[in-house]
Amino acid sequence: MRTINVGLVGLGTVGSGVVDILRRHREDFRRRAGVDIALTRFVDRSIARFEELGLPPEACTTDVADVIADPSIDVVIELVGGTGIARDIVLSALAAGKSVVTANKALMAAHGQDIMEAAAGHGVDIAFEASVGGGIPIIGPLKHSLVSNEVAAVYGIVNGTTNFMLTRMAEDGLDYDTALAEAQERGYAEADPAADVDGLDAAAKIAILSSIAFNSRVTLDQVPAEGIRSLGPEDVAYAAEMGYAIKLMAIARRAEDGIDVRVHPTMIRDDHPLAKVSGVYNAIYVVGDSVGETMFFGEGAGSLPAASAVVGDLIEVARHLQSGCLGLVGCTCNEQHPIRDIGSLETSYYVRLIVSDRPGVLASIASLFGEHDVSLASVIQKRTDDLGDAEIVWVTHTAAERDVRSALAEIEALESVQSVCSVIRVEEL
Amino acid sequence: MRTINVGLVGLGTVGSGVVDILRRHREDFRRRAGVDIALTRFVDRSIARFEELGLPPEACTTDVADVIADPSIDVVIELVGGTGIARDIVLSALAAGKSVVTANKALMAAHGQDIMEAAAGHGVDIAFEASVGGGIPIIGPLKHSLVSNEVAAVYGIVNGTTNFMLTRMAEDGLDYDTALAEAQERGYAEADPAADVDGLDAAAKIAILSSIAFNSRVTLDQVPAEGIRSLGPEDVAYAAEMGYAIKLMAIARRAEDGIDVRVHPTMIRDDHPLAKVSGVYNAIYVVGDSVGETMFFGEGAGSLPAASAVVGDLIEVARHLQSGCLGLVGCTCNEQHPIRDIGSLETSYYVRLIVSDRPGVLASIASLFGEHDVSLASVIQKRTDDLGDAEIVWVTHTAAERDVRSALAEIEALESVQSVCSVIRVEEL
Repeated sequence: MRTINVGLVGLGTVGSGVVDILRRHREDFRRRAGVDIALTRFVDRSIARFEELGLPPEACTTDVADVIADPSIDVVIELVGGTGIARDIVLSALAAGKSVVTANKALMAAHGQDIMEAAAGHGVDIAFEASVGGGIPIIGPLKHSLVSNEVAAVYGIVNGTTNFMLTRMAEDGLDYDTALAEAQERGYAEADPAADVDGLDAAAKIAILSSIAFNSRVTLDQVPAEGIRSLGPEDVAYAAEMGYAIKLMAIARRAEDGIDVRVHPTMIRDDHPLAKVSGVYNAIYVVGDSVGETMFFGEGAGSLPAASAVVGDLIEVARHLQSGCLGLVGCTCNEQHPIRDIGSLETSYYVRLIVSDRPGVLASIASLFGEHDVSLASVIQKRTDDLGDAEIVWVTHTAAERDVRSALAEIEALESVQSVCSVIRVEEL
Repeated sequence: MRTINVGLVGLGTVGSGVVDILRRHREDFRRRAGVDIALTRFVDRSIARFEELGLPPEACTTDVADVIADPSIDVVIELVGGTGIARDIVLSALAAGKSVVTANKALMAAHGQDIMEAAAGHGVDIAFEASVGGGIPIIGPLKHSLVSNEVAAVYGIVNGTTNFMLTRMAEDGLDYDTALAEAQERGYAEADPAADVDGLDAAAKIAILSSIAFNSRVTLDQVPAEGIRSLGPEDVAYAAEMGYAIKLMAIARRAEDGIDVRVHPTMIRDDHPLAKVSGVYNAIYVVGDSVGETMFFGEGAGSLPAASAVVGDLIEVARHLQSGCLGLVGCTCNEQHPIRDIGSLETSYYVRLIVSDRPGVLASIASLFGEHDVSLASVIQKRTDDLGDAEIVWVTHTAAERDVRSALAEIEALESVQSVCSVIRVEEL
């Protein structure tokens, strides 16, 4: 058993989890998995961090080039994040013949193809299980156990921050701002929460999952993302009354004319397993032509769950190195499917409006929906305020997104309509 | 790309699913997974079956020895089931240098060690994802993505037949016999339902999962199994009143002094994700020291779901064959932990009794529990019938199984106790 030497780049939350797992389990991995893994070099911008983690000074450096140039290093773990310097680190490590393990969703969603080609070109492994769903095994299952399936759809709750916020809004009636403040207080949300609440984090993850599920490259910029900022506690409450939960869903579906991929708040039936996924938990629902419906559930973030996936990948790479099996399963994007325009989406819609409460208003709105071929399933006046404004919730039958958008543009322009508060897609999974 | 030739032994429900998937997707697998898989030999006892599946007569035989002796065959798929002839087929195929894919839980639970050693000895793969949870990826994740974890516990709902029956009992108040008849009518239960309703099917599956999860061989005969025959609709209803669901759970836990492994009806809090797993669906809940709590959910049986796992394994073996990477991950039972006696189990217990409804009976029962160190959390008299018999439900605090059993033996012997109807373990997951 030869020792596999690893350079760990980035000693933040996940990096410290990796150090912790290897400290506790290196001997177990020798015995149980038959690989001997040694973290031998550590890179971080902060020298203080080395000391905090009790790392030997001679193994630590602030210059990643030291690790790339070190011929004794077999594997580089990239936990820097982002698409700038992280990309250089990954590509230069691969070029130096080192396998790479990364948790970097943004990088894989934006530059996945280049990176996988570079790994294949240099005959090494690139592994990125931790980039989606924290510790939940999902990339492995899609590339292995489920590879016999033609995947029809992937539905993911893949952002724990927003799922925590939506759970608090649903269970305790919090409004968006209060829920966000609480998420920040608990360390679930960043000071600048944009990547989470605007759906960009989820978009990167579904780009990665759909690339694998449909064997066709999907990049971050191809995923329309809508976040949860405009959701009110009313929406969550009205959805519950109708038997639905609202979740920020990352959706990817195989359609005849291409891949339907998007991130947005979604109403799903409250008896669906995904509706029960609460708090910071994540879940990915995969529908395959043979396996039927499967779901993978767990903690989508946090130091140890993400490090669990990183070290799982690391052990896998070590096994490959030891057996001379690097590059066993590389890029699987062997097909090219177009991405469907979200305007072609056909689903039903929940629309909440504030209108002047006077005769003829409902009729004029209904007729604008009708003119745009949007047929209505229900309309409910929820409440009227002292100013004579009424809150109205419409639910449409299945309609094309572009027709709904055109209708809403004209409805919003009506003098009697104060505002279109929320438009939420309703999915029957 | 060289063609991987496969001999398929057993053309029942799962076998026909495998034929179906390869017919539809062989070209896709070439393109997407880079392997060319050809089913070239078929074995079944029934000649009629060959015709029903439209297989070429020259590829079909009733004698498995033809396939074992055929040097062109790279992989044998064993779907015969049982531990008799299936064991010979698997061992002779491995001895002939062929890799084997099997869905045979009984075989792997009883003879897993011999089979894995034989595969290692001959330098070939043995794969058995389909033996647990139908199409749900669980063996793959445990051996790969989650391998970085010290697994604390595995909780499985791994028998679809009994889960269907319990769901019908819970949701519609059916009794055991009616639920069984309905399961048989729908083809979920065999004419002889013993393997399902007595928990033996689940016991084989948890033997396999705990062997992998704890790196220590657990065999079928080491798993105490208790089925659902004695459960009444009252138990299901009373559990629901108390905020619990009753599931037939396969449980494996790491304890300081060994492995705690067992199958029995279990009361779990109804807000736990496992409580929501209904009908023929299966789920496996894995608790790891780094990943935390994860769950894998899907269809646990049926032709195509099980075939999905078989073909997933087949593609994996084909990749290994093609790259010269056979035997990459073999047996991982590198430790030896004792199996704990179920008498040492400590949990709380739900006990339903029929007793004579007269003064002093409750007191004498309570004092017998007390004499055996079983402390009581609650006692509720549920109803009294015309004959003067009362139904009483007791819930204990945490107690040792052997103490509860001793107490119940004496309680059952009381003249005033008509019967101990049900004893159900309550688990706080």
